[in-house]
Amino acid sequence: MADESKKWVLMVTAQTPTNIAVIKYWGKRDETLILPINDSISVTLDPEHLCTTTTVAVSPSFESDRMWLNGKEISLSGGRYQNCLREIRSRASDVHDEGKGVHIEKKDWEKLHLHIASYNNFPTAAGLASSAAGFACLVFALAKLMNVKEDQGKLSAIARQGSGSACRSLFGGFVKWIMGKGDNGSDSLAVQLVDEKHWDELVIIIAVVSSRQKETSSTSGMRESVETSLLLKHRAKEIVPKRIIQMEEAIKNHDFSSFANLTCADSNQFHAVCLDTSPPIFYMNNTSHRIISCVEKWNHSEETPQVAYTFDAGPNAVLIARNRKVASLLLQRMLFYFPPTPETDLNNFILGDKSILQDAGIKEMKDIDALSSPPEIKDNANVPKYRGEVSYFICTRPGRGPVELADASQALLNPETGLPK
Amino acid sequence: MADESKKWVLMVTAQTPTNIAVIKYWGKRDETLILPINDSISVTLDPEHLCTTTTVAVSPSFESDRMWLNGKEISLSGGRYQNCLREIRSRASDVHDEGKGVHIEKKDWEKLHLHIASYNNFPTAAGLASSAAGFACLVFALAKLMNVKEDQGKLSAIARQGSGSACRSLFGGFVKWIMGKGDNGSDSLAVQLVDEKHWDELVIIIAVVSSRQKETSSTSGMRESVETSLLLKHRAKEIVPKRIIQMEEAIKNHDFSSFANLTCADSNQFHAVCLDTSPPIFYMNNTSHRIISCVEKWNHSEETPQVAYTFDAGPNAVLIARNRKVASLLLQRMLFYFPPTPETDLNNFILGDKSILQDAGIKEMKDIDALSSPPEIKDNANVPKYRGEVSYFICTRPGRGPVELADASQALLNPETGLPK
Repeated sequence: MADESKKWVLMVTAQTPTNIAVIKYWGKRDETLILPINDSISVTLDPEHLCTTTTVAVSPSFESDRMWLNGKEISLSGGRYQNCLREIRSRASDVHDEGKGVHIEKKDWEKLHLHIASYNNFPTAAGLASSAAGFACLVFALAKLMNVKEDQGKLSAIARQGSGSACRSLFGGFVKWIMGKGDNGSDSLAVQLVDEKHWDELVIIIAVVSSRQKETSSTSGMRESVETSLLLKHRAKEIVPKRIIQMEEAIKNHDFSSFANLTCADSNQFHAVCLDTSPPIFYMNNTSHRIISCVEKWNHSEETPQVAYTFDAGPNAVLIARNRKVASLLLQRMLFYFPPTPETDLNNFILGDKSILQDAGIKEMKDIDALSSPPEIKDNANVPKYRGEVSYFICTRPGRGPVELADASQALLNPETGLPK
Repeated sequence: MADESKKWVLMVTAQTPTNIAVIKYWGKRDETLILPINDSISVTLDPEHLCTTTTVAVSPSFESDRMWLNGKEISLSGGRYQNCLREIRSRASDVHDEGKGVHIEKKDWEKLHLHIASYNNFPTAAGLASSAAGFACLVFALAKLMNVKEDQGKLSAIARQGSGSACRSLFGGFVKWIMGKGDNGSDSLAVQLVDEKHWDELVIIIAVVSSRQKETSSTSGMRESVETSLLLKHRAKEIVPKRIIQMEEAIKNHDFSSFANLTCADSNQFHAVCLDTSPPIFYMNNTSHRIISCVEKWNHSEETPQVAYTFDAGPNAVLIARNRKVASLLLQRMLFYFPPTPETDLNNFILGDKSILQDAGIKEMKDIDALSSPPEIKDNANVPKYRGEVSYFICTRPGRGPVELADASQALLNPETGLPK
């Protein structure tokens, strides 16, 4: 090891995307190892709009493992963090940084402590899979720091032990989490189906829905579903395996109709299973239902699907548009039905890729009020609007997997002290 | 036949209850004969609070079959009415009314026309199974008028062809609709499990929920579920048969815990199947979800179920309380969470058996405002209320089957003209 009297700090900063499942993961066969009861498929969201940035640091001066999330220190004592740290440490290799004169040997990692700082560029509590991006980023950054030689698939199996869906955030594009067969979880890992360039016409709009309800956590929700839903077993065993094959085919062939039908049906079936749980779990609310109705009506009128919707363990809608043109028409519809409250700043109402707003012909708030009702609405006289039911929209697209950020200015920890900047 | 020059009118008035399924009917295997894909079980509601009254009349002076529903003439040309009329006519017998000097022979019924007037003592559009009571009453009254000698079970198979769930309204108490095996539907009929006296502690409170949505009709909804839901087949084939046996056992043994668990689980599973339909069907709304959460929280805190809930093809909750004491506690909770809007008259807010209101200690509107939050709520500081989300409540109980009303003053048709009074 390097001279402990020298107060060096070695660090790595990485950025990892979040992902949204289009064939859902719901139900574990092993609670500790986080092994699922079915395969799932997700699309990785562009980290430019939704991502976690994590800096991990090691120094002989650190007295314990510590972590800060969005600037606030949090406990690392939870089993999920401990599992990830243990698994990564056990795979660490020698690290030599000649510039800093740092030499860490494989065996030293067990004794050295870590500082971790993590930051989401989107609201943590908005139900946008922050834990997926978070654990993926933690594992990816630590693997770089500790010179772990395993491939991304193996790393995904470690991230999985932090948060199941985190394993899918180790890759860009479309990703499959293979449930695996073994009891030790080594074959339950993510693989990339296609990268983010394969189907780059797709545009994704997330509607963050206002909600008064406190939601059931997905961890306890899926445990209760496994214990009580008679439909879940049938779904996992008989329905999902067929859908996985169909979805892979649809993605490979850019077959949007099939992709949209499968995505919507699988989201609805996941929520059906939640409802079949005792006591029943409601993640979608009236606003979610209205968004679905709007999309279904439009898709029906066009005869071929224009937009797919999917909802995770909360009321937010993730809408996937066939292409950019459709995305601007979708945004018009969403803004027509769900205009912002009067005090809202348009700039805070549409986040992410704001250029879609221009395509939709919206420059200022009065352009939203001037939107006419969509052509698929027959009874124009009495179209209800639901002002304020959507808090904001995020416009994004399929994106890349994790990257290391070489630029030291992006680190979240002070390179001298190893404490948050 | 009697002398046609004599302008006699012969009529029968009957009253028939509505019913609510506790093991749900959802899905037909034959659309025309209305043959279901699974057995179902219902409780008949007291006709004193919810019923249809129907007067059927025959006269040689009538020129065509005509019907009035709630005072408004409606068409009888629909297949469902035609099927019921045809089936009943084909089973008619000789009728001799010496007092009136009327003699109708079996063969005459094919030529004679009918007038029918029907009236619901509850809002038709409130989603309270008015068609069930309506078709049951039509068939029951016509069978009396035409001296049909078939038993109630056979009559139920005719009512079934008007509206599936109507077959269950031919009996009081708890009723099972046996799906049957045959292709002609003759074995798809209702049987009484126990009469209304068997379990007379039960109290039923219906929350009629305000709704802006136009709902999918149950006819088209169940057709779409049969065509698109992958979960429905599994439910009908694997889950319901076991639940039917368990439910019969629970009813026989007055086992409220088992009854409530099955009732709630089956209602939730029916709505899960609706959500698994493409496009998805939402019958429950935020208010329905809140009612479920309130009941689940209370049941959980009492450790043993106090109240069962069930929802048909709409947002209204049917709540079944273990006994009268529990019903008054339930009403307090409902009124606490869902107080009426200020302009509401208490007398129009609680319908049916108003004595439960007294038990609950509610004499006037200010008693509702004075209700304290239920003891199972831990955080008293921030309990949300949902004023106006429930339009009104109906307090009722399990009730009897159809009866003929001998009192001529209750007839809905004028005994001289055969036209609505």
